[in-house]
Amino acid sequence: MAPALDAQEAPNGGESLTPLQVQNNNASHKSKVTIIGSGNWGSVASKLVASNTLRLTSFHDEVRMWVFEETLPSGEKLTDVINRNNENVKYLPGIKLGKNVVADPDLESAVKDADMLVFVTPHQFMEGICKKLVGKIKRDAEAISLVKGMEVKMEGPCMISSLISEQLGISCCVLMGANIANEIAVGKFSEATVGYRDNREVAEKWVQLFNTPYFNVTAVQDVEGVELCGTLKNVVAIAAGFVDGLEMGNNTKAAIMRLGLREMKAFSKLLSPSVKDSTFFESCGVADLITTCLGGRNRKVAEAFARNGGKRSFDELEAEMLQGQKLQGVSTAAEVYEVLSHRGWLELFPLFSTVHEISTGRFPPSAIVEYLGTSN
Amino acid sequence: MAPALDAQEAPNGGESLTPLQVQNNNASHKSKVTIIGSGNWGSVASKLVASNTLRLTSFHDEVRMWVFEETLPSGEKLTDVINRNNENVKYLPGIKLGKNVVADPDLESAVKDADMLVFVTPHQFMEGICKKLVGKIKRDAEAISLVKGMEVKMEGPCMISSLISEQLGISCCVLMGANIANEIAVGKFSEATVGYRDNREVAEKWVQLFNTPYFNVTAVQDVEGVELCGTLKNVVAIAAGFVDGLEMGNNTKAAIMRLGLREMKAFSKLLSPSVKDSTFFESCGVADLITTCLGGRNRKVAEAFARNGGKRSFDELEAEMLQGQKLQGVSTAAEVYEVLSHRGWLELFPLFSTVHEISTGRFPPSAIVEYLGTSN
Repeated sequence: MAPALDAQEAPNGGESLTPLQVQNNNASHKSKVTIIGSGNWGSVASKLVASNTLRLTSFHDEVRMWVFEETLPSGEKLTDVINRNNENVKYLPGIKLGKNVVADPDLESAVKDADMLVFVTPHQFMEGICKKLVGKIKRDAEAISLVKGMEVKMEGPCMISSLISEQLGISCCVLMGANIANEIAVGKFSEATVGYRDNREVAEKWVQLFNTPYFNVTAVQDVEGVELCGTLKNVVAIAAGFVDGLEMGNNTKAAIMRLGLREMKAFSKLLSPSVKDSTFFESCGVADLITTCLGGRNRKVAEAFARNGGKRSFDELEAEMLQGQKLQGVSTAAEVYEVLSHRGWLELFPLFSTVHEISTGRFPPSAIVEYLGTSN
Repeated sequence: MAPALDAQEAPNGGESLTPLQVQNNNASHKSKVTIIGSGNWGSVASKLVASNTLRLTSFHDEVRMWVFEETLPSGEKLTDVINRNNENVKYLPGIKLGKNVVADPDLESAVKDADMLVFVTPHQFMEGICKKLVGKIKRDAEAISLVKGMEVKMEGPCMISSLISEQLGISCCVLMGANIANEIAVGKFSEATVGYRDNREVAEKWVQLFNTPYFNVTAVQDVEGVELCGTLKNVVAIAAGFVDGLEMGNNTKAAIMRLGLREMKAFSKLLSPSVKDSTFFESCGVADLITTCLGGRNRKVAEAFARNGGKRSFDELEAEMLQGQKLQGVSTAAEVYEVLSHRGWLELFPLFSTVHEISTGRFPPSAIVEYLGTSN
């Protein structure tokens, strides 16, 4: 237990606690936060969280950030530069993270004292990370996942929050929402949604940790719905990017986004009947879909893919355009396709399945609108 | 009654009808269509309808279009030019409407034989037009309104479809949806929703009249919900335009659009409790909102308004930017504000009320985001 002022040791000799003493006394319950991941969104999340841990007495000031170590062209280690300059020069250049963000290249050391674990890595790394964390975290730690995507296993799709809960034996909320990280980083107003299963109090703590005057966070009791929104919207963004690349105009793009939202809702409810319609009107639903289809990287690379008539692969364009960031939409589309095909649902989801057929080169980009006239 | 082959006069002497005979026989029931209005959207509607009346035997080929007569700079009458060139050179230049579209400057003559009346004028003209039509139309005519907006009267707001029904004693459906008319005009894919009250058969007939391979129309039994979507989205588009003019980025714009959709839903359900949540997932809801907030004229003029810091009025910008087209969002915002203020609902609708306060110059454009941090 961390050292703390006991009421009997206080200068006034054990009277009722003053606000200052309450604050000091609460030090024993201050939650330590670790961010697992340090890409573009992970860095922005660190900045948001670090501004709140300084401001709120229920959190330790220091925010530890696990960084997958890289050697920069200058020969320096990325963690050394982050800790010296308070800036992730590779994934969020020009933005100060806060002096209380400490980069740590050692995963085990980064998590060992943490009460609150924020997962924010590309989804394909999550299974390996969870395996490494087994037995290394506090037993009563709480987790939240900002990761978009799912793992497809023999027994069916597994959402990242379930993967974390199952592998680590802890409960896990999700936070999804507007993901144009660079806009949040410079304080432009945006929103996000926390999805929780049953513990409203824990959800409120996550809201406190992330909410700022320019980043408006609300909680809804629908962890599956929120997480599936955050995951599936990237598939729709690929479709929207194709429409942009084909220069088909805003009406067509809006139609594709609407049909995409409808497939998101239908797919989520088939996978998880508890998913609520109202979740799709939250920030994680329609707002994040709009943001992602207007400005996200999935849309951008898909636009380039369509402009090149599908002749340059997504891997090639991703490497060229994203400076090491990962594209989630294409791999999510592949995973969704596997689920649809395994369950015999392909014909129910023409948009989702067509995105996969196009991104793997089986259909031309123009196929994205060819089924539309027959769809209702 | 129009002359038609009677079964007894048919070559086979009154046996069961062949498909050809059915077609001929139906000639007696061919519906005549008149479009009341000839602006940008009215011209596109004429083009869509005219392609279907030629193709489908249940409609008369000729589509009459009432045109508010204007003298062009060349000295010619607008109707003469439309009838000579099949083109509305003023409001939809470069697009052929179809040779079966006949422009008529005389309202009474345009409607007198019509079985199906399509209303598509700026909403502020609708009350006057309805007054002129009393007693001049067929008693069993059916109407559909493509008009966005409402009339605010002493007894409360009155939607355009109700105005038509009440003044003319006929039933009225509505058609709302993607309204970037120029994109539809060149055959880019888009969607629309027909809202009907109880007669599914009539709704299907309107769907037939408007649906094309690139304009996908579906019908839902929620005339109020569909009409309010089409009306209220223009207020949200004004807000989206302010955000664009202030260069606040896509996250903020998506947040504004989401909050706008939420106010659209809440306002509609307060006015008309039968309105369905599912209507807001239709083309008239989320898709049209997206289209209008990405590319519509309300957005465009509001962007210019914000860029000028509110120093040039909407009237001035409208005159300069829209070549005679009318801006619905600002007047709808004023009407909505009147309803909200009359019923004591202003605080429930911060986005709607702020749009009106900004457009009338009481608040600066930046006010559009100032309440957001406190809104959920």
